[in-house]
Amino acid sequence: MHLIEGGGKRLRAILPWLVADACGGASDSLYDLGAAIEIIHNFTLVHDDIMDNDELRRGRDAVHIAYDMPTAINAGDAMLAVSFELLSEADQISSDNFRSLVSIIGKMVRKVSEGQQLDMDFENRDSVSEEEYLAMISGKTAAMFTTCARTGAILSGAAPDVIENLAEWGEKLGLCFQLMDDLIDATGDSETLGKPACSDVVEGKRTLIAIHALGLDSSKLETFHDVFASGNDDIPRDKLDKVLNELQASGSIDYAKNRAMGFHQQAHSCLDKLPDSPALSILRQLTDWQLIRIS
Amino acid sequence: MHLIEGGGKRLRAILPWLVADACGGASDSLYDLGAAIEIIHNFTLVHDDIMDNDELRRGRDAVHIAYDMPTAINAGDAMLAVSFELLSEADQISSDNFRSLVSIIGKMVRKVSEGQQLDMDFENRDSVSEEEYLAMISGKTAAMFTTCARTGAILSGAAPDVIENLAEWGEKLGLCFQLMDDLIDATGDSETLGKPACSDVVEGKRTLIAIHALGLDSSKLETFHDVFASGNDDIPRDKLDKVLNELQASGSIDYAKNRAMGFHQQAHSCLDKLPDSPALSILRQLTDWQLIRIS
Repeated sequence: MHLIEGGGKRLRAILPWLVADACGGASDSLYDLGAAIEIIHNFTLVHDDIMDNDELRRGRDAVHIAYDMPTAINAGDAMLAVSFELLSEADQISSDNFRSLVSIIGKMVRKVSEGQQLDMDFENRDSVSEEEYLAMISGKTAAMFTTCARTGAILSGAAPDVIENLAEWGEKLGLCFQLMDDLIDATGDSETLGKPACSDVVEGKRTLIAIHALGLDSSKLETFHDVFASGNDDIPRDKLDKVLNELQASGSIDYAKNRAMGFHQQAHSCLDKLPDSPALSILRQLTDWQLIRIS
Repeated sequence: MHLIEGGGKRLRAILPWLVADACGGASDSLYDLGAAIEIIHNFTLVHDDIMDNDELRRGRDAVHIAYDMPTAINAGDAMLAVSFELLSEADQISSDNFRSLVSIIGKMVRKVSEGQQLDMDFENRDSVSEEEYLAMISGKTAAMFTTCARTGAILSGAAPDVIENLAEWGEKLGLCFQLMDDLIDATGDSETLGKPACSDVVEGKRTLIAIHALGLDSSKLETFHDVFASGNDDIPRDKLDKVLNELQASGSIDYAKNRAMGFHQQAHSCLDKLPDSPALSILRQLTDWQLIRIS
């Protein structure tokens, strides 16, 4: 509850309902599904913050700081279990649909773990390609959006091609979301972020921004190279500003922004195939919001 | 695979099949169920070894030592996900039964986490009662045996009273198993255990042996009190032998042994209600084996 009460967007909690409504058939069971996926999302945050050594989340202490590391591992495990437990008790979901959901959600959690592992492994690699980065965030981040959309569409009773189209929308939305997350980390300030700014650069994360910058002549990115993967949490703000200036001048920020806008466009193309509805309009706003959100 | 290849008894993998066979109806789906629960058991070992700071498991490095802590957290998460995934793909399990299994297994994982949390919290408590200890191991250890038995009986198509009787057998077997585990830790040698001897005493674990000893006059348990919760991993073998001698002289070892034998007896009483069969005979041997096993 420490983490849940800290806020968060509850985006994954409402997405299945919105997708089902846009497909023409939302029912109360979508709330159970959304709750299950939102709890799983929060479980991944609890464990990721331990793995990534992040001490702040949603402007308050991460769970392993507020309590301790063993408690945070254990609480995360229980949260994943509770998600399956509550889903099994959602009476309105037919047993056949329930089975599909467990299969899809089980695969999703595995893919998120695989993506998280790649993310960590990349930190120790000499070079990471753009394709490898995209495969990594497809698991770490997009899998959960894809699942929200696919399972929401399934529970609405949509046809297979509609389900796959919405799953693709979720994937593109997720890729856009992670690229924007990387950009926000690089360009935001600590207070807005609720966590230290430029933490990805300090930790040596292979974001698309970093991959682009690492492929350039290093002479104009001296401060970036100095800070990258240093693990130093006490770098003064003016030095971090200099890193940001270098990444802007090198075109690395714009490069990632353009890729994000490409996925944003592809996500809208998927939505173009759906009939107009109030729910569709919200899905469009959510898709646009990825490009303007600040945290 | 590092942990799985290290061996282990695979007890939870075969229990559902044996229970179903003893109820008159084992089928291939019991192997899928057994595999799912065995993988979950191994997932809990990976995470428990981090939480409990245990560096050895099955005579080899624990996963967080062989790899690193973040990898071990992440691998455990993926193992839990894979269990649900493979269960959803077991075609021979009807969708209604599948739903019951997910509900029961989800609850089981939550109870295991709650038990593990109590186990850790107890280390910092002034006193822990025998009832509290039994509630803790009912979650941490017995819940998985109860689940093996209950789900095995369900898939065999047994009547509700037969299912509940076997679940009770699993609970008693699990309580006996954990008490014996505690006794083996106190009385075994490091080579047989595949981990340091007396680690529970050193860590200050509130086993039934420790609860009994802590309730006695401390003058005859001086070495025990000196070692208890010291966290010192380098205590010489002759000092640990002295701890064991004190615990034997104080009756603490016998006290825990007698409780284990009580649960062993209750487990057999449950089996008395089943018709004779080769599977029942194996369940009886497994029940007896708890009292004589050495690791």
